[in-house]
Amino acid sequence: MTAPASSYVLTLTCANRPGIVSAVATALFEAGGNIQEAQQSDDVTTGRFLMRVVFDVSSETREEALRGSLGAVAERFGMAWSLRDRAVKRRVMLLVSKFDHCLADLLYRWRIGELPMELTGIISNHPRETYAHLDFTGVPFHHLPVTKATKMEQEAEIWRLFQATGSELMVLARYMQVLSDGLAAKLPGRCINIHHSFLPGFKGARPYHQAHARGVKLIGATAHFVTADLDEGPIIEQDVERISHADTPDDLVRKGRDIERRVLARAIRFFLEDRVILNGGKTVVFTA
Amino acid sequence: MTAPASSYVLTLTCANRPGIVSAVATALFEAGGNIQEAQQSDDVTTGRFLMRVVFDVSSETREEALRGSLGAVAERFGMAWSLRDRAVKRRVMLLVSKFDHCLADLLYRWRIGELPMELTGIISNHPRETYAHLDFTGVPFHHLPVTKATKMEQEAEIWRLFQATGSELMVLARYMQVLSDGLAAKLPGRCINIHHSFLPGFKGARPYHQAHARGVKLIGATAHFVTADLDEGPIIEQDVERISHADTPDDLVRKGRDIERRVLARAIRFFLEDRVILNGGKTVVFTA
Amino acid sequence: MTAPASSYVLTLTCANRPGIVSAVATALFEAGGNIQEAQQSDDVTTGRFLMRVVFDVSSETREEALRGSLGAVAERFGMAWSLRDRAVKRRVMLLVSKFDHCLADLLYRWRIGELPMELTGIISNHPRETYAHLDFTGVPFHHLPVTKATKMEQEAEIWRLFQATGSELMVLARYMQVLSDGLAAKLPGRCINIHHSFLPGFKGARPYHQAHARGVKLIGATAHFVTADLDEGPIIEQDVERISHADTPDDLVRKGRDIERRVLARAIRFFLEDRVILNGGKTVVFTA
Amino acid sequence: MTAPASSYVLTLTCANRPGIVSAVATALFEAGGNIQEAQQSDDVTTGRFLMRVVFDVSSETREEALRGSLGAVAERFGMAWSLRDRAVKRRVMLLVSKFDHCLADLLYRWRIGELPMELTGIISNHPRETYAHLDFTGVPFHHLPVTKATKMEQEAEIWRLFQATGSELMVLARYMQVLSDGLAAKLPGRCINIHHSFLPGFKGARPYHQAHARGVKLIGATAHFVTADLDEGPIIEQDVERISHADTPDDLVRKGRDIERRVLARAIRFFLEDRVILNGGKTVVFTA
Repeated sequence: MTAPASSYVLTLTCANRPGIVSAVATALFEAGGNIQEAQQSDDVTTGRFLMRVVFDVSSETREEALRGSLGAVAERFGMAWSLRDRAVKRRVMLLVSKFDHCLADLLYRWRIGELPMELTGIISNHPRETYAHLDFTGVPFHHLPVTKATKMEQEAEIWRLFQATGSELMVLARYMQVLSDGLAAKLPGRCINIHHSFLPGFKGARPYHQAHARGVKLIGATAHFVTADLDEGPIIEQDVERISHADTPDDLVRKGRDIERRVLARAIRFFLEDRVILNGGKTVVFTA
Repeated sequence: MTAPASSYVLTLTCANRPGIVSAVATALFEAGGNIQEAQQSDDVTTGRFLMRVVFDVSSETREEALRGSLGAVAERFGMAWSLRDRAVKRRVMLLVSKFDHCLADLLYRWRIGELPMELTGIISNHPRETYAHLDFTGVPFHHLPVTKATKMEQEAEIWRLFQATGSELMVLARYMQVLSDGLAAKLPGRCINIHHSFLPGFKGARPYHQAHARGVKLIGATAHFVTADLDEGPIIEQDVERISHADTPDDLVRKGRDIERRVLARAIRFFLEDRVILNGGKTVVFTA
Repeated sequence: MTAPASSYVLTLTCANRPGIVSAVATALFEAGGNIQEAQQSDDVTTGRFLMRVVFDVSSETREEALRGSLGAVAERFGMAWSLRDRAVKRRVMLLVSKFDHCLADLLYRWRIGELPMELTGIISNHPRETYAHLDFTGVPFHHLPVTKATKMEQEAEIWRLFQATGSELMVLARYMQVLSDGLAAKLPGRCINIHHSFLPGFKGARPYHQAHARGVKLIGATAHFVTADLDEGPIIEQDVERISHADTPDDLVRKGRDIERRVLARAIRFFLEDRVILNGGKTVVFTA
Repeated sequence: MTAPASSYVLTLTCANRPGIVSAVATALFEAGGNIQEAQQSDDVTTGRFLMRVVFDVSSETREEALRGSLGAVAERFGMAWSLRDRAVKRRVMLLVSKFDHCLADLLYRWRIGELPMELTGIISNHPRETYAHLDFTGVPFHHLPVTKATKMEQEAEIWRLFQATGSELMVLARYMQVLSDGLAAKLPGRCINIHHSFLPGFKGARPYHQAHARGVKLIGATAHFVTADLDEGPIIEQDVERISHADTPDDLVRKGRDIERRVLARAIRFFLEDRVILNGGKTVVFTA
């Protein structure tokens, strides 16, 4: 009787040169792997090579052996790489403020098994009763209020909870506090934010009102990695909806909610499936 | 025997107050008009009322009589208004530089009768042979080269041609010269430009290359009225297309061409059908 | 001191002829109404005229007086018409089966005040625990199981609940039972269903699997009124998403959920705002 | 001095089993190839494996050597495969009837170098003057009128021209004659057609009028391979546009033209870049 197979996803990046695909594919083949999906990208600007491979192995294959084979290839080509058992779900912490449309949406998708993740906690600067109609069963809730004076301590507690729970991804699901540079710097490629975006862009408060005043015909949202140095980090996903002069600022806010929640959910899915690879100030997203 | 009907489009704007629709509709009814389409917008921010009405009259109705009836209503409400016989095509002048994708597209749509306009001329700062494969039959071509030293004279000639041909709309169909404030000021609500637009926006040269470097997932184009005072005038129409990391800067330029030509063609159609009304720094577009 | 204004929405349809807009606008003006929005459509195929008017009146205006004035106009033109105080929310009953993505979405939009409606009940052929993680606070839940033998009785109970609660709209939010012709006939223009739609269409079971086998590049959903006579009643709203060969049937089902819930929510919003008018076998949707 | 590189695209399909990617990548590496892009798909339903690889070789590498190495791998895995020098443009023949929007669009894209193809001819059942304003310079035009009585001879002449010109792709750019089964059977995976598509679908004449009567909210177009046995062959690309009750049947036809020409152009581009692989009754399109 054949033992059931395990499925892995391998991501890697290195300087481009001939022979990478051959070396990786051969190492996988010799380790008993059968490639199910493979995607690659050559960034001709930077000379970087990026790759994602999904493969099966029989259950007799030990992960250490796989890591040994791949490690040898990685060393030869100077690769940064990651190997993940697809049966092990990623651990995700959600941060939220008053507006809970992204939170409610993510919870629903998680409950029906659409997003393959473990929720390690929900952190809010608002109390539990803000979300009275949302069922948090199975997910610890942490009320961490914040003022200018307590921001440092609050962020330290966020970071402690993130580490203590073994979290791998922090999602700012309409968390309306700006992360300090220090906290952002601890989470490169591991913290996703969602925000509105417009053509043209608007600075300052009440952007939907500004967009209305300017008469734009499209509004959008962008999910991106949070970085310390940039206003706006590497973009993961974007989408837009059409609006008209008949839409009030409130209509824009309402349509914005729909765009924000679907763009954020897509970006998280891409992350959970190891489809997003950081490539300098931008990302490669292997959307298949 | 019933005489064939004429069809008119009326647009008007004034300060909002009760009774406008009633007064306009009654004036039209009493003048023998039958309303086919009517659209209106109340700008609650500014208190302006904007309206577009398409109506038929029997061929016995004289336009002067119509204008008299409507003029009385307009005076009562302090309206800016325009009445246009839909059988009379708008007169349009095209300005173009080296890239001719918008020009070729507009010419095609014009020839098959899709855009109800008279082309009064094509002005380019490049010579006729730049467009060797485009058929300009029926449209005068003017080669008006331009340098910094001759810009004033060149623009004077553009303006002379615009007036001499009775043109009502100037279209910058990828005309790569910035109009001087003086010329722009002569064409409020009568000059449409097309340019690329991105989330986020990019300043400076080679925007598609910047967008590529930033890893944006959507690129777009905006058609807008040209104004003297603003970087970018009132927006008429926008659209986007999805891109990915696999798209090169050349792919972005190619997809940009497709977006630009369809956005510009839509904006011109809206203008030709009197669907666009200037409303301060923005537009109302009655797209039906 | 000015009394606060009331806001009404008027919809009407009649055979097209000159003078309708004038008569309606004048009646509203004389009754003290100030038109805020007006949209109309002439169906040249059928000669029907359809109109939607939103207007304010001072609080001194009595609704009976309004109805009297409008009734006189309606009689003159043979109109079917409806006048509704916008402050009075529509009463809506939801029917659902096992899949609750539309239900969860509608409940969320209702709770945050995005959809202006009163929920009169949730009816399911599955028990309450099917929706263990959804908060039904404030909405009566009715478990009405159904078999072929009991369908007549179950539908009678649905109809009794609909009437007893003063419901005005029934929403089949992925209710997987086909309504009998008899029940459908009681709900013309008052029952909205959501279902998948594809290019090309597929008959029979497991349509997402069929679409996958056929290699379609777009999947979609359609919200429509339920009718007794037609396979598929008058369409209210549709949307699509792009898919690729890399999407599994499960991916299609997942993307389908997203399309279904947003298309259904939009259709219900249009209904609640009196934007949908039945016009024979199709609808006019004044989306503004 | 390094000789300039050549670039190839390899496509292949075979029954899936472990080791394919390794074998292909190793053969390419040993033959001096450097992989630039690689995409693959496993059809879990049929057990087929499909792959597209773009790679460079130094100019010293001879194509025969490449073919030898790859042929050995192909034989081992029972692959159907194709190797193409990307510098050699595909040879394409266009068939057209009265409506020339797709033809004009393809000619323009070809002239500016956007579509990397050689046009081997334009065949129409209408005379040259039908396209008086299109410049056919550099492309032979063949007027091949057709009646029921002469269809067999006309198709024989089409086929003769296709072969005599070394054409590799036939594009039905709104060619309004149905190809006979016999001619279609000679062109599996080599003949692309464009036609309208709707949700729901409509049979018979004047589909845009039917769609209008039915009140659909989206109209679309589908580009597909022509087959003898099917109403509609394997789908390559699809797109839609939103419409409303205010769109007349003529508006639908106009919007349909825009969708048709962009969907057809995309499908042809995918073919020219070897991104489309037939997979039974459907396609894999590696859109990157």
